[in-house]
Amino acid sequence: MNNEVIYLDHAAATPVDAKVLAAMQPFFSDDFYNPSAPYAPALEVRRHYNDAKHSIARTIGAKSDDLIMTAGATESINLAFSSVDGHVVTSNIEHHAVLAAAAKCASATYVEANEKGIVSARAVAAAIRPDTQLVSIALANNELGTIQPLRDIAQALMDIRRSRLAKGDHTPLYFHTDASQGFGQLDVNVSRLGVDLLTLNAAKLYGPKQVGLLWAASSAVLNPVIVGGGQERGLRSGTENVAGVIGFAKAVELASVHRKFETDRLKQLRDVMQKRLSDAFPDAVVSGSLHHRLAGHLHISFPNLDAERVLFALEMRGVLVATGSACAANKGTRSHVLTAIGLAPRLADGSLRLTFGHLSTEENTNTAADIIIEEINKEYTRAAN
Amino acid sequence: MNNEVIYLDHAAATPVDAKVLAAMQPFFSDDFYNPSAPYAPALEVRRHYNDAKHSIARTIGAKSDDLIMTAGATESINLAFSSVDGHVVTSNIEHHAVLAAAAKCASATYVEANEKGIVSARAVAAAIRPDTQLVSIALANNELGTIQPLRDIAQALMDIRRSRLAKGDHTPLYFHTDASQGFGQLDVNVSRLGVDLLTLNAAKLYGPKQVGLLWAASSAVLNPVIVGGGQERGLRSGTENVAGVIGFAKAVELASVHRKFETDRLKQLRDVMQKRLSDAFPDAVVSGSLHHRLAGHLHISFPNLDAERVLFALEMRGVLVATGSACAANKGTRSHVLTAIGLAPRLADGSLRLTFGHLSTEENTNTAADIIIEEINKEYTRAAN
Repeated sequence: MNNEVIYLDHAAATPVDAKVLAAMQPFFSDDFYNPSAPYAPALEVRRHYNDAKHSIARTIGAKSDDLIMTAGATESINLAFSSVDGHVVTSNIEHHAVLAAAAKCASATYVEANEKGIVSARAVAAAIRPDTQLVSIALANNELGTIQPLRDIAQALMDIRRSRLAKGDHTPLYFHTDASQGFGQLDVNVSRLGVDLLTLNAAKLYGPKQVGLLWAASSAVLNPVIVGGGQERGLRSGTENVAGVIGFAKAVELASVHRKFETDRLKQLRDVMQKRLSDAFPDAVVSGSLHHRLAGHLHISFPNLDAERVLFALEMRGVLVATGSACAANKGTRSHVLTAIGLAPRLADGSLRLTFGHLSTEENTNTAADIIIEEINKEYTRAAN
Repeated sequence: MNNEVIYLDHAAATPVDAKVLAAMQPFFSDDFYNPSAPYAPALEVRRHYNDAKHSIARTIGAKSDDLIMTAGATESINLAFSSVDGHVVTSNIEHHAVLAAAAKCASATYVEANEKGIVSARAVAAAIRPDTQLVSIALANNELGTIQPLRDIAQALMDIRRSRLAKGDHTPLYFHTDASQGFGQLDVNVSRLGVDLLTLNAAKLYGPKQVGLLWAASSAVLNPVIVGGGQERGLRSGTENVAGVIGFAKAVELASVHRKFETDRLKQLRDVMQKRLSDAFPDAVVSGSLHHRLAGHLHISFPNLDAERVLFALEMRGVLVATGSACAANKGTRSHVLTAIGLAPRLADGSLRLTFGHLSTEENTNTAADIIIEEINKEYTRAAN
């Protein structure tokens, strides 16, 4: 990381933590053995791999046997969706991976988030049909940072499951959440959340890219997407990513240990930025619920601003921000999330997403605020002439 | 790697080369940006990622656009197979990943390898039906090391394709090969091999685990297994494994540069071992074609020997070998490959697979030969009493 850069896009990617990299290091060139090989050094690798899974499982209140290690959140989401063959319910503000997986299902209903970017349990319950087998709602929205009422949704689904069972109907109704965005700032415990399937991604957690997992309650029946040697209890074949999973476990451990402190710290920094930008531009609109929002997340829109021009001007001064979700950034279309919450185009096109994280400090937050205010003023002046 | 260990299982896993790890290193914590983000440092990451793909593509005589980066050979194979909905033809000595993917297809024919572990073009051609859409034969067998006549098979398939076209029949007939085992010892050029789909795996090449690719000729129409953000031209979504792919490219480059020298070196070491074991045990049987075999591969069977006991005795003395394919090693069943080539149980159960590679030297090969001979003699003596 260039020291002159101020990184405000932690929702798009995070640097691998030095401790995470240190944990991974021995497993590249020294303890490189195939964990399926029968000799002691390979069994030792297997032990480290299993310990890593146990450690992650413990943190989220799960059993290690119920974790399926994958190559990231997208694969986990695909695995969750491919396990059902009926109707699915999700929301219109989900990540592209969920929307794409839902589009491959027999049929799908997209529940509308409200104007605060919240998906209500009532709306989800209303969308359930007799043939609905899966509900998938992200723990936190990757653009707005809004935190969804998963426990309420879980309760509503529990009631529906009970009424199905009372009628002798055994159609499964799984509840999946992608908790990639938000882990490290929120309590992620599978029982407390009340979900049956949960996706996590190391890359959002200061761990390596292309390492993730799907947790599945032992009652959930999964249909493997990738078959072969039978690794991960036959649910996801391929020689294990030993270094990656060990790094993932260290990232989860660090996130869990520092969660309370880091969440408070990020909230302070985010609030400083929000106040400074709102003070400088009284017309600016902060999107998403202010009460149910990730501590490190700020989505703010400046009326009639060309946010893309500002993004590039900021980049020239070393401040890296996003206009929308990184996954959609290259597509040149307006964010489906902002459209879904009904943000007017004159605001949507003037949106910046600022996400704070390990690389954020009080000093660089204030410097960034100075630069952002300057560059937005410049852009407004330019556009007015 | 413990210096006292002599590793003779390079077909199961390879240590990440120091140069590969050095190439990956900057992309964990420094240049960690999401390659889909719009600012310059992220575009720079994108450029490095694309350069890595170009470099791999050039080495195998392909276009970079036709490479789909995956989480390893198993995923690549699943992607190749999920792209067809008709009959598939493969052989009875393929890797578990191919057999499992074939089993998910509408229908499959398993061509029998001959007793030398070779799959003939004639046998493959004879198995083609009017509804056959895919043929999948590995470049080299992972247990025996036998090299398959891919060019002859490609020629036979070309004739069938031509005759289909002459009849106005546009049913595709793709030829896929898993070239994971053998890259680094063989010339892997997609045009010269005559394939339409080709799988490679970094983990077999002194690159990182869970990094692979599927090359697909631009004429091949693929059906994505993992959908989402639309990465890899929509054929494999998920934030790219930047460090992993850059390491893969370095591994491919090194393998390609050193191929001739390394192949000669491994052949010499393998031949020393083969001669010493055959001289010490005149009844020992070397399996697989002696003419069409990977330079670093030795599959040798000792009549009525309990190979598993020998494997553990060798391990106690620091010599690590395999009894079968690592993927199947934990299953306690006899290798399907050895059964397929008709190796008698009294030989099959006494088989060792010794695979040479970067960690092999003349000195440790001779030391290993001494120890293997000693331990086999001990085991024969023990069993006789």
